[in-house]
Amino acid sequence: METDFKGIFAALTTPFIEGEISVDKFKDNIQKYNAFPLSGYVVLGSTGEAVYLTDEESRKLVQTAKEWSSPEKKIMAGTARESTKITLDFTNQMADLGIDAAMIRPPSYFKPHMGGEALKKHYLTIADQAKIPFFIYNIPQYTGIFVDSELVSELSRHPRIIGLKDSYGDLSSASELAAQLDSGFSILLGAGSSLLSGLIMGASGGILRLADIAPAQCIELYELFSAGKIAKARKIQQDLIPLNKAITQSFGIQGLKYALDLAGYYGGLPRLPLLPLHQEGKKEIQNILDHLHLLERKPT
Amino acid sequence: METDFKGIFAALTTPFIEGEISVDKFKDNIQKYNAFPLSGYVVLGSTGEAVYLTDEESRKLVQTAKEWSSPEKKIMAGTARESTKITLDFTNQMADLGIDAAMIRPPSYFKPHMGGEALKKHYLTIADQAKIPFFIYNIPQYTGIFVDSELVSELSRHPRIIGLKDSYGDLSSASELAAQLDSGFSILLGAGSSLLSGLIMGASGGILRLADIAPAQCIELYELFSAGKIAKARKIQQDLIPLNKAITQSFGIQGLKYALDLAGYYGGLPRLPLLPLHQEGKKEIQNILDHLHLLERKPT
Amino acid sequence: METDFKGIFAALTTPFIEGEISVDKFKDNIQKYNAFPLSGYVVLGSTGEAVYLTDEESRKLVQTAKEWSSPEKKIMAGTARESTKITLDFTNQMADLGIDAAMIRPPSYFKPHMGGEALKKHYLTIADQAKIPFFIYNIPQYTGIFVDSELVSELSRHPRIIGLKDSYGDLSSASELAAQLDSGFSILLGAGSSLLSGLIMGASGGILRLADIAPAQCIELYELFSAGKIAKARKIQQDLIPLNKAITQSFGIQGLKYALDLAGYYGGLPRLPLLPLHQEGKKEIQNILDHLHLLERKPT
Amino acid sequence: METDFKGIFAALTTPFIEGEISVDKFKDNIQKYNAFPLSGYVVLGSTGEAVYLTDEESRKLVQTAKEWSSPEKKIMAGTARESTKITLDFTNQMADLGIDAAMIRPPSYFKPHMGGEALKKHYLTIADQAKIPFFIYNIPQYTGIFVDSELVSELSRHPRIIGLKDSYGDLSSASELAAQLDSGFSILLGAGSSLLSGLIMGASGGILRLADIAPAQCIELYELFSAGKIAKARKIQQDLIPLNKAITQSFGIQGLKYALDLAGYYGGLPRLPLLPLHQEGKKEIQNILDHLHLLERKPT
Repeated sequence: METDFKGIFAALTTPFIEGEISVDKFKDNIQKYNAFPLSGYVVLGSTGEAVYLTDEESRKLVQTAKEWSSPEKKIMAGTARESTKITLDFTNQMADLGIDAAMIRPPSYFKPHMGGEALKKHYLTIADQAKIPFFIYNIPQYTGIFVDSELVSELSRHPRIIGLKDSYGDLSSASELAAQLDSGFSILLGAGSSLLSGLIMGASGGILRLADIAPAQCIELYELFSAGKIAKARKIQQDLIPLNKAITQSFGIQGLKYALDLAGYYGGLPRLPLLPLHQEGKKEIQNILDHLHLLERKPT
Repeated sequence: METDFKGIFAALTTPFIEGEISVDKFKDNIQKYNAFPLSGYVVLGSTGEAVYLTDEESRKLVQTAKEWSSPEKKIMAGTARESTKITLDFTNQMADLGIDAAMIRPPSYFKPHMGGEALKKHYLTIADQAKIPFFIYNIPQYTGIFVDSELVSELSRHPRIIGLKDSYGDLSSASELAAQLDSGFSILLGAGSSLLSGLIMGASGGILRLADIAPAQCIELYELFSAGKIAKARKIQQDLIPLNKAITQSFGIQGLKYALDLAGYYGGLPRLPLLPLHQEGKKEIQNILDHLHLLERKPT
Repeated sequence: METDFKGIFAALTTPFIEGEISVDKFKDNIQKYNAFPLSGYVVLGSTGEAVYLTDEESRKLVQTAKEWSSPEKKIMAGTARESTKITLDFTNQMADLGIDAAMIRPPSYFKPHMGGEALKKHYLTIADQAKIPFFIYNIPQYTGIFVDSELVSELSRHPRIIGLKDSYGDLSSASELAAQLDSGFSILLGAGSSLLSGLIMGASGGILRLADIAPAQCIELYELFSAGKIAKARKIQQDLIPLNKAITQSFGIQGLKYALDLAGYYGGLPRLPLLPLHQEGKKEIQNILDHLHLLERKPT
Repeated sequence: METDFKGIFAALTTPFIEGEISVDKFKDNIQKYNAFPLSGYVVLGSTGEAVYLTDEESRKLVQTAKEWSSPEKKIMAGTARESTKITLDFTNQMADLGIDAAMIRPPSYFKPHMGGEALKKHYLTIADQAKIPFFIYNIPQYTGIFVDSELVSELSRHPRIIGLKDSYGDLSSASELAAQLDSGFSILLGAGSSLLSGLIMGASGGILRLADIAPAQCIELYELFSAGKIAKARKIQQDLIPLNKAITQSFGIQGLKYALDLAGYYGGLPRLPLLPLHQEGKKEIQNILDHLHLLERKPT
């Protein structure tokens, strides 16, 4: 069995106007992304500032994504909460809205007590009662918790745990899993600078912030890889590294949203406590986009 | 001006029966604590598993605390969320229920972007619009964010930012602040093993998990300190260190809840993903309580 | 200009007999490695337990490597010390013994004060007075210091700073540098699980612990990559991941040395405080080697 | 049995003139310190930039300290190396020079493999063969290794392991040990801001960088504590916090050495890679010293 979750997924941003979510702008962005052969969309991910949204806002975004995304595209949603039960409940609410799969990062508040046993119990409890399958979401730079390959391997035996979204930059754990697990278990990469490397090591695709701003390039990279044209794929990967660094590590979602504004999408401002991008960051992002021929609008 | 927030506050647990909050057991515990000259209660703190509660459950707990706590006791509540606006809204909802002060830990999900400027904007935005004063809550072991003394010092100028709850074990930052700031700014310690040290360095009291299980001892320590009887206070502090270690670092809330069950309060189980205490931990806690003459019930 | 430092280098172990270095066993191992088309050897690296050697022992090992390695192989040596001056002096002593290049990890004892300016001054001071060129050696898992891409890029302008040995598992920094810098600057990978990924992103080779135990496989991987046979290279890479994990992360040098004993080289014991490998680790390594057909001797 | 190691020890700096150690300036400083009732001196500690010294330089410093310190003062020396055997050898060399006790930080290069068993074997091997007793030196901010209370407690049973120098800011581990261990085991504090707190919790004194620049104040604090005059001791402790922060966390040894120059001792420059203090730091240190009436010389 091969996974249905492969190729490039865009990790969607959440548009705000004066601090309120804008379903209209969200729809507009999706309509633009529909023109690209993306495999699907992730709503309520880290990039979507999910931790800053109410449940009600979250529901609206998922409904909008379902309504406006072209039918061949898969919809995934981040559904993690700290508590096992609330995560399960919210996952099932999202299931009722028709998403194809959930994406669940580990609970992380009580770090010293979130060892392997606690995580295993958490994920299996959810898996046993969830209405839809889900991906484990490993993003230690935000959670402080690393879901190790032994645990993922063990959890992968549950039929409802169908993949790993790995946003950790070091691919050795993901590579080990890819070599070891059946191709029905999907590994989707979250670190845009490691997309090609990860594909080569057996990942089936990526869920990328980078795909919001450079969807054509991400898809081209994926297709070149699939066609065995590694040298060309590498050229694209290398070209994208500075952009990826700018919209993640250096300037974060603020940087991504500013870049979206310049590239013909709606970006807007993130919610506080994320601050608007400072002038120096704007200049740097403008230069990077210009260099990649992604600049569609006059910078403000 | 001297602070009104001094002495020993109990960081209350949230009782669950079969996974649901039990307002009755919460009330029972409070009535038992009312018999001690505690300065007040903190609801919805880390110890209260606040991150595992819905807003509705949170409201019920605060209402119950208001209703059943003896009138001289102050009620504080943890009101932090990741977003600035949602934190503000929830803080004001709790204010409407009559709490005396809020306790707000820093937002921490997007760690690389939660620098001093972001935290400052977050706290000042809330302070400007909150209906009640609040404490900054520094607990880097859970949040991964350290609120440094320079920032606290700056924030302390806002009239609605009235104190720091410091759960960091290293007191140098808290000591520096105590030496520097007016006594109208209250520093309450969260690390039970450092209570006496912190008091000596200028803290005005503590918000303690330890006060749930050993309220008399915590109060006695505080009173001995206030009376200048340092040697006696130190004896108590030293005796409490193993218990504090067991209910924090070693076994966490699971350990505390088990200890409460043995000491005549209602403990029960924590919510998943926190696991029940294993047998070895139970044995160790029983021994520690026995040694401190806190064992009221037969261990199960 | 293209770099002379490319292909697979073995990071040599230091053989001990009853705690004393054995120049004979070191020679024996080198003679065995000479039969493989390795690009060269690294003496006094982390794998060589350099931090456990006296200067006198270090000299003997370098002299032995010079004397016994086949003439086409390059010899590199780790020459870092904490002080700038002592590092320079030791580097020049090793230069006098005829090594081709040094490998210098950042000083790391006073971590909070080893910022970019201090590291820059350190490396440039050495570069200005060293008799041979050197590689910057990035290994944050041991040093606690990350040499970032901006600094490497700046340092690469000095003619005597000719490369980066990057043992960090996350390749985004190395990839960024490979895309940016002239091919005269060599990036050699230290993380065996990322060898293929790194090569694809522009590294010129690897300095590998894995090449001590599986030199043929490492070289084959490199040659397949060079010939554009990525799928075959990937198969080898995936097969090697469990072995690499065992001899680094899981069991360290103890594991590597035990594996060498089983594979027909001299391994022996590491120096204290590194402990001998426990029975369970021995069993696991034996299984891994067996699976890879690298088992030449009966396990003890 | 009560420990002989109590009171205030100065952690001596190593004076350099144009990069070379100056035995004369070292002697001059010691002669000045001899006028204070310090309990002793620590040579070759972190503050002494021990990691930047050759063995030969180290020997000269210890000999000079032995020769010039007033007879009632104890001499301790940092003797740690990475290897167990080299640490033992160097410890015994220093023993031959007549030091009273060694101070040994844990080996830390191969961090993932320096677990409790490795550290235990390391320390016990040394203890079994050392000619003098020694202190375990816990300084995780530099080594990345935390020597936990269980291990210290176990090691304290060896007659040659006579104490702990604890430079960790969080006192809970030290407090636990002080409560638990016989008074023959000495706990000496390394964190100047926690001196009073630590004394109250049972430490027998401190080995302090702060005692280099403010010996009289440190001794007064200790004596007030011993006389039960806690309020006065606390006043001194609070006054010293900004100075301690400046010469440790903020500006490090560079800051301390500049402060020494202003206060009538010889400071000079640290060795590279430690950089000279920048102008802003100089200004801040000058202000702090001025405020404490420790300014003896015109700032340069």
